[in-house]
Amino acid sequence: MATGQAIGVFDSGVGGLTVLKEIARHLPHEDLIYLGDTARVPYGTKSPETVRRYALEAADFLVERGVKMLVVACNTASAVALDALKAKYDLPVIGVIEPGAGRAAALTRSGKVGVIGTEGTIKSEAYPRAIRAIDPALDVVSVACPLFVPLAEEGWAEHDIARLAAVEYLGPIAREIDTLVLGCTHYPLLKTILHAVLGDGVELVDSAEETAHTVVAQLGTARVDRLRQRTISFYVTDVPTRFERVGSAFLGNHLGAVTQVSLAD
Amino acid sequence: MATGQAIGVFDSGVGGLTVLKEIARHLPHEDLIYLGDTARVPYGTKSPETVRRYALEAADFLVERGVKMLVVACNTASAVALDALKAKYDLPVIGVIEPGAGRAAALTRSGKVGVIGTEGTIKSEAYPRAIRAIDPALDVVSVACPLFVPLAEEGWAEHDIARLAAVEYLGPIAREIDTLVLGCTHYPLLKTILHAVLGDGVELVDSAEETAHTVVAQLGTARVDRLRQRTISFYVTDVPTRFERVGSAFLGNHLGAVTQVSLAD
Repeated sequence: MATGQAIGVFDSGVGGLTVLKEIARHLPHEDLIYLGDTARVPYGTKSPETVRRYALEAADFLVERGVKMLVVACNTASAVALDALKAKYDLPVIGVIEPGAGRAAALTRSGKVGVIGTEGTIKSEAYPRAIRAIDPALDVVSVACPLFVPLAEEGWAEHDIARLAAVEYLGPIAREIDTLVLGCTHYPLLKTILHAVLGDGVELVDSAEETAHTVVAQLGTARVDRLRQRTISFYVTDVPTRFERVGSAFLGNHLGAVTQVSLAD
Repeated sequence: MATGQAIGVFDSGVGGLTVLKEIARHLPHEDLIYLGDTARVPYGTKSPETVRRYALEAADFLVERGVKMLVVACNTASAVALDALKAKYDLPVIGVIEPGAGRAAALTRSGKVGVIGTEGTIKSEAYPRAIRAIDPALDVVSVACPLFVPLAEEGWAEHDIARLAAVEYLGPIAREIDTLVLGCTHYPLLKTILHAVLGDGVELVDSAEETAHTVVAQLGTARVDRLRQRTISFYVTDVPTRFERVGSAFLGNHLGAVTQVSLAD
């Protein structure tokens, strides 16, 4: 297994599999290592200090396996830990915030962009900062949607309950914006409901897709052997059972073998 | 601070404050120490092995502070870690399962008891086991309700979304049972909605109240100085901000000072 060639991807749990899926699709010959910190999931309700510590431990694990690039496939960790990760490691570190922010800034015509995410992501103001860094004239309105993650994990992403939650969270801003950043890796599963609640006038920005484009651009023209079979390895910090069950909905197909590892304890 | 006299109470987060509140009410002169493992919350979606490890670390923290009794104010931890805790420590260890099971067995007239809880609690089958140990003739039907915890923490316990979720989870068993055990410390916040969905024919059993009775019975006639001011200390493993904010709804009044501590790392 040529893990020295692999791209390392981590998230608090299963959500980052939406990012892994896009990277895997765009780069069919690259080895990938995915780590889900399922023993401590979620990150979105925890403090920046704690999430930063967890993110550094997750990154250590991947760097020890010799990855050539780190992808932080978690909005909360990208929002509060990206600088710390970039400072610590001497390899490319890519988060999901800047790609999503860039796409939103390019798409909006009215100049009014909405961002939804976990409590941690919204409180960090990482998206408004990244969007205004691109164009200071843009207006950004942010809403934390803590119930969307459990709804997606419950398999209720297209249930009436999800629609009602979407109305509650987004009703107040639906008419203000023309672009909405899905600032949490779970939210693409709610696209149908979000589209129904917001209408045709609002474009949805999926950070997973944008992040995959950034990864491709960053890798540049490096050659990979197009004949060899690539490897995707999955690691989690809790027993894999639940990750395997919930993860398939996120990855869109069957997961390979999942190995349990210990990070800090 | 006479922590040698204190009762130690722990939970994965804020939920156990409903148990602490009942103990504090019944024992107004006892010192109490509460620990919420907020850096790793929730336990309800994690494996028995991981929850057992976390519970032992939490208990170690309290035992090091010289508590005279351990109360596991978390259904998931009680369901999967009580035996390990009892084996490790030479002091009374009280969980929330047996008190709730005892009350349900005493209340039911039809002999059909419902139990709701987290994925971890329901999968463990700790409640059916405890109820059938009291009366093997009783029928127990269990339903995991993963969305109730985030709903309660979002402050939506009496929102239409909670009612819809309650109908989804409990509709299929509402007419079968005459007693429902609220097998998660968050669920008492949903009592109004649960009562509305289930009707007058179903009694709700709150493990928090029953556990407080067990604690009182276990302490027996030990004398406490009724003139001294008692102390309640709060510890958490993440930054206290969120615990302080969400916790007040669970405790029913303002929390005192909350101190952040590290368990394992």
